Amino acid sequence: MTVPPSRPTRIDTMRERNLALVLREVARGQPVTRARLAEVTGLTKTTVASQVALLEELRLVTTAGPVREGGRGRPGAPVSLAAGPVAGLGLEINGHYLAACVLDPTGEVRLSQTVACDNRGRDARETLEALGTLAQWVIARAAETGLDVVGTGVALPGVITEGNVNAPNLGWESVPAAALISGALHGQVFGVIVDNEANLGALGELWYGAGQGAGSYLYLSGETGIGAGIVVDGELFRGAHGSAGEIGHVVVDPRGTTCRCGGTGCLELVAGIDAVLLAAGLADDVGASEPGLAELLRRLDDGDRAARGAIEAAGQGLATALVGAVNLLDPDTIVLGGLHAHLAPWLTPAIEAAVAHGGGKLRGGRPAIRASALAAESAVRGAAGTVLAAVLADPSALA
Amino acid sequence: MTVPPSRPTRIDTMRERNLALVLREVARGQPVTRARLAEVTGLTKTTVASQVALLEELRLVTTAGPVREGGRGRPGAPVSLAAGPVAGLGLEINGHYLAACVLDPTGEVRLSQTVACDNRGRDARETLEALGTLAQWVIARAAETGLDVVGTGVALPGVITEGNVNAPNLGWESVPAAALISGALHGQVFGVIVDNEANLGALGELWYGAGQGAGSYLYLSGETGIGAGIVVDGELFRGAHGSAGEIGHVVVDPRGTTCRCGGTGCLELVAGIDAVLLAAGLADDVGASEPGLAELLRRLDDGDRAARGAIEAAGQGLATALVGAVNLLDPDTIVLGGLHAHLAPWLTPAIEAAVAHGGGKLRGGRPAIRASALAAESAVRGAAGTVLAAVLADPSALA
Repeated sequence: MTVPPSRPTRIDTMRERNLALVLREVARGQPVTRARLAEVTGLTKTTVASQVALLEELRLVTTAGPVREGGRGRPGAPVSLAAGPVAGLGLEINGHYLAACVLDPTGEVRLSQTVACDNRGRDARETLEALGTLAQWVIARAAETGLDVVGTGVALPGVITEGNVNAPNLGWESVPAAALISGALHGQVFGVIVDNEANLGALGELWYGAGQGAGSYLYLSGETGIGAGIVVDGELFRGAHGSAGEIGHVVVDPRGTTCRCGGTGCLELVAGIDAVLLAAGLADDVGASEPGLAELLRRLDDGDRAARGAIEAAGQGLATALVGAVNLLDPDTIVLGGLHAHLAPWLTPAIEAAVAHGGGKLRGGRPAIRASALAAESAVRGAAGTVLAAVLADPSALA
Repeated sequence: MTVPPSRPTRIDTMRERNLALVLREVARGQPVTRARLAEVTGLTKTTVASQVALLEELRLVTTAGPVREGGRGRPGAPVSLAAGPVAGLGLEINGHYLAACVLDPTGEVRLSQTVACDNRGRDARETLEALGTLAQWVIARAAETGLDVVGTGVALPGVITEGNVNAPNLGWESVPAAALISGALHGQVFGVIVDNEANLGALGELWYGAGQGAGSYLYLSGETGIGAGIVVDGELFRGAHGSAGEIGHVVVDPRGTTCRCGGTGCLELVAGIDAVLLAAGLADDVGASEPGLAELLRRLDDGDRAARGAIEAAGQGLATALVGAVNLLDPDTIVLGGLHAHLAPWLTPAIEAAVAHGGGKLRGGRPAIRASALAAESAVRGAAGTVLAAVLADPSALA
């Protein structure tokens, strides 16, 4: 869901398309010479030179080596993405924290801030106000280091329909989050983009983490809830109504208990982090926070029976759900993300065994199972990355 | 999986692309005038006229109204697809029958033949020989009515990897089906295309049945096994290794029995047609044939307890698997196909209730659940349709 930025609709001219084309090829092959850019884009060298000059004016690319009089780089010197001042802001509301990060066009994290707080059941407007305050603080700090935030991506643990958010694990029902956040962050060229945290986590992995190079993969975000981001040939698969990937509500025990979603025996009732901690005998107030997780990991290492039982049940639930997902979607790779990334050594064996057996005789190949390299940061990085993707798609908006 | 047809690689010229473009627009908008074709393709009227003339020579299109001297239609008269002589052959190997059908370019069924026989556990070469004999007989009968089969699509109940087929329900392991069938059916311009029956069933529904107009849907083929064809924005989704859609091996009972696939509690163990008939107390030798099904339907109407229990278990299994599929894929529509199409009135209520509850609070929309209009014919129609799709994509191959 995108809230249209507050600028007039522009005419999509050939020149604007060429500008985007040149910038995309710089991003793909950097550092890259103008001659090579002409070769891969099919544009004339003159056109490439003028587009590169414009991208330099917009401060999106730089030319290596000494600059000529007039401030432009040498024609033969390779062109790279600039490490600022243009920047994208990523924000995330999780059950247990608020997070923000700022990426420059090279994808480098220039600022990052996480605030631990319990957002489950907290008033939605209050949570969104706290997020707005965090965002403004981060934007101001970024400005001090010369960075100019041109757009914001926001990751939310729910399903977003026309800017309204249903997030049972936060207690949110039809909260107009996109409008509320946009109100607090006006004036950005690329506006505010609100999306599901598992979708943004999958994009974070695709752009900056374990998904790089995998064509089709299933990214699992294991937090209080469990979402999946489905990437097919490098593109996010969203489904007919934008709510694909709700793997937390796949039924893993038809005789199980009732879920907040209205269903029975859902995956997140046994494999969501809160459920695992509770089953392990860790008080709910520890929550699915990093300290609670650290204590769980300590008990697992110590051979604590309740902890081991809880992780075994979680592994079995994930195995059942993932056998289904693998049979339906046939992915290259499964990435365990969010807090599940830290539990991967305990969860992976059960998943691998089940995937090898369930339908195994039918398949051409078996997916690799990996822990996310970014863990809890995937979603906020993906959120910031969507702004950079928007810049790449239409750099002339910055002119 | 496509076996390359036995013709040299041609150069993809502009003229060939224009020919395909004009044919595709005729197929999309028929009957359509040359003036309209020029408008929608962006080609000049002269180019359109010459391409239409060539398509008439290839006997792929006809012009309505009286023909001029020289055999070509009047320039102002609308152009339509020809109802022959070019034709596509569809073949299917099912556990309980062999089927063939011939479609002309308008999609009309010109010939269709089904031979009941038990192919489960039968020697693969023997089954393929019987299919070859059926194919040759149908091709000869088609020729008698002036139809020229230019290619063959084959639907198989298994996973196809580089022309080799694993089909546990037939007892096939790595059978080189594509090569064997191609040997029996040489000389066709578009060769032999071998694909999974659920994939071809989904395409049959998309082109000729309940899928028309639905952007993203899940087609279920309920036979001895249960496969799914996943259509996303009008395109078949195949997964990373070509084995997406194996919904029959989604786990619906983690405490269930072991399946032929190696997994536990798979959907087809409770909802496959053989499983339903067995649970209903219908002898296995009745098989998943139309007579066995007719007897099951009679008993269901009579309120027979075993039959009702069997269908209830099947409905619950389907409900569990489909809640998972809906949460993962978020389709517009679910089409119950194959023999499940006949059982739809008995199966749909449990599925609808489960889909409404499971994850229901999270979703933007709920998929419609429909019975296939083509029932057991979807796959063989889709198989023949792939030939027509190949003709549409490259009509110049017929020159």
